[in-house]
Amino acid sequence: MRELLVIGIGAGDPDQVTVQAVKAMNRADVFFVLGKGAEKDDLVAVRTGILAEHVRRPHRIVEIADPPRNRTPDDYEGVVDDWHERRAARFEEHFGAVDGVGAILVWGDPSLYDSTLRIVERVLARGRVAFEYSVVPGVTSVQSLAAQHRTVLNRIGEPIHVTTGRRLAADPAQIPDSTVVMLDAHCTFTQVPGDDVDIWWGAYLGTPDEVLVSGNLRDVEDEIVRLRGELRERKGWIMDTYLLRRR
Amino acid sequence: MRELLVIGIGAGDPDQVTVQAVKAMNRADVFFVLGKGAEKDDLVAVRTGILAEHVRRPHRIVEIADPPRNRTPDDYEGVVDDWHERRAARFEEHFGAVDGVGAILVWGDPSLYDSTLRIVERVLARGRVAFEYSVVPGVTSVQSLAAQHRTVLNRIGEPIHVTTGRRLAADPAQIPDSTVVMLDAHCTFTQVPGDDVDIWWGAYLGTPDEVLVSGNLRDVEDEIVRLRGELRERKGWIMDTYLLRRR
Ligand SMILES: C[S@@+](CC[C@H](N)C(=O)[O-])C[C@H]1O[C@@H](n2cnc3c(N)ncnc32)[C@H](O)[C@@H]1O
Ligand SMILES: C[S@@+](CC[C@H](N)C(=O)[O-])C[C@H]1O[C@@H](n2cnc3c(N)ncnc32)[C@H](O)[C@@H]1O
Repeated sequence: MRELLVIGIGAGDPDQVTVQAVKAMNRADVFFVLGKGAEKDDLVAVRTGILAEHVRRPHRIVEIADPPRNRTPDDYEGVVDDWHERRAARFEEHFGAVDGVGAILVWGDPSLYDSTLRIVERVLARGRVAFEYSVVPGVTSVQSLAAQHRTVLNRIGEPIHVTTGRRLAADPAQIPDSTVVMLDAHCTFTQVPGDDVDIWWGAYLGTPDEVLVSGNLRDVEDEIVRLRGELRERKGWIMDTYLLRRR
Repeated sequence: MRELLVIGIGAGDPDQVTVQAVKAMNRADVFFVLGKGAEKDDLVAVRTGILAEHVRRPHRIVEIADPPRNRTPDDYEGVVDDWHERRAARFEEHFGAVDGVGAILVWGDPSLYDSTLRIVERVLARGRVAFEYSVVPGVTSVQSLAAQHRTVLNRIGEPIHVTTGRRLAADPAQIPDSTVVMLDAHCTFTQVPGDDVDIWWGAYLGTPDEVLVSGNLRDVEDEIVRLRGELRERKGWIMDTYLLRRR
């Protein structure tokens, strides 16, 4: 493989793909598709839909599956590191088999809670394959959330905090600034104290299944918990993000 | 005006425009172009370039200039509020004169340190004109910075903080997480203490003038200060953003 393109494709709406991403896709010979969990098939469908619509040149699509992972390790750090190494080895093998330009389509933007760039660096650090690589930025689910709610993320001149459900759960009173929460499987917003917090919540943003709820957190939290449960049940998976802000 | 489209266009590279944005642009009859300061002409040129390349339907471009602003007011809040109100009045007048669909092209993404959505809400709150409106998200300069440096913004599972130069200057030791700094006219990174901080800096991202510097803050800060001064001198304006992270 001569070159690798890591391409952000937006976070749900296939039309969120940029002209730059389309041009990059049309330089690739092979597309590597990753994916995992229950949502895999739907998310892979968005990617292959984008390729079918925008790529005019002959190309191959190769799926890279994750190696199996020990979920209850004694030595957590060691096991995770070993898993990453086996993952890198798998990528290395696939990369080595390409003649020309490879591409990886990344959900949203590659710089936001995504492991692709870390894997690529790991493959390069192993030193067995060598290639040029570049990154094409994409629209994130955070931008999508704000757009659908027609809201600005920051208060005038104030900071924005982007964090994970796990981090928020560790200290749910801590939302000093406008706080965007991603990767939250447990409706951690219900643990945030106070009557003066607003929430802007969105699930399946940019897709036909999109659902939005906003309002005072105490007024709408039960509705979001109920909705989230129902939607997750119905589709088998859910992706949601929200903005919290104290008045 | 029946409808208003607020469209993010990416933060420098005209190819950062999304397919969704192109489709939205092709529904508009009138484009409102705002802009201010020394960078105005260059930034307006990016926008008109995007329109020339992607819009196939007849359209008008209308420039909305900012009303004059009292820079040394006695009553700061009152004066700013008054200025926003006069600004809204100007938009209201322009919006009222449109027959059909209006659009505003916003640098980067409309949800990130941009006043367009606040003005639109203010115009609607005045109650003299009424219209539907929607927002099309765009690639931000933050995503562009990370892509050009081929880096992830967050450490694994950790938060990201996005702030302004002014805020960082108020407490330059406070960079608990990966911190992205925007709107910094004063190289505030030089005030951040410690030998264990890395910086990823970028100016004119996505444009032919793009410059990138990264490394240990103490090693590269002088170079960035020098470069920033030279570039600003040469072009008459500069736009730069950076990521800071303590090791
Ligand atoms: C592994 S992170 C990847 C984020 C992605 N790189 C981005 O730029 O948005 C996955 C998290 O992003 C958020 N997310 C991604 N796509 C989403 C969508 N279409 N609707 C709602 N949330 C989404 C959810 O919080 C989800 O848990
Ligand atoms: C008023 S804010 C608007 C941000 C914009 N809405 C976005 O999504 O990137 C302007 C600040 O964004 C950053 N910025 C915007 N475009 C940039 C570019 N092309 N290169 C570097 N920084 C940029 C700079 O920090 C600048 O001071």
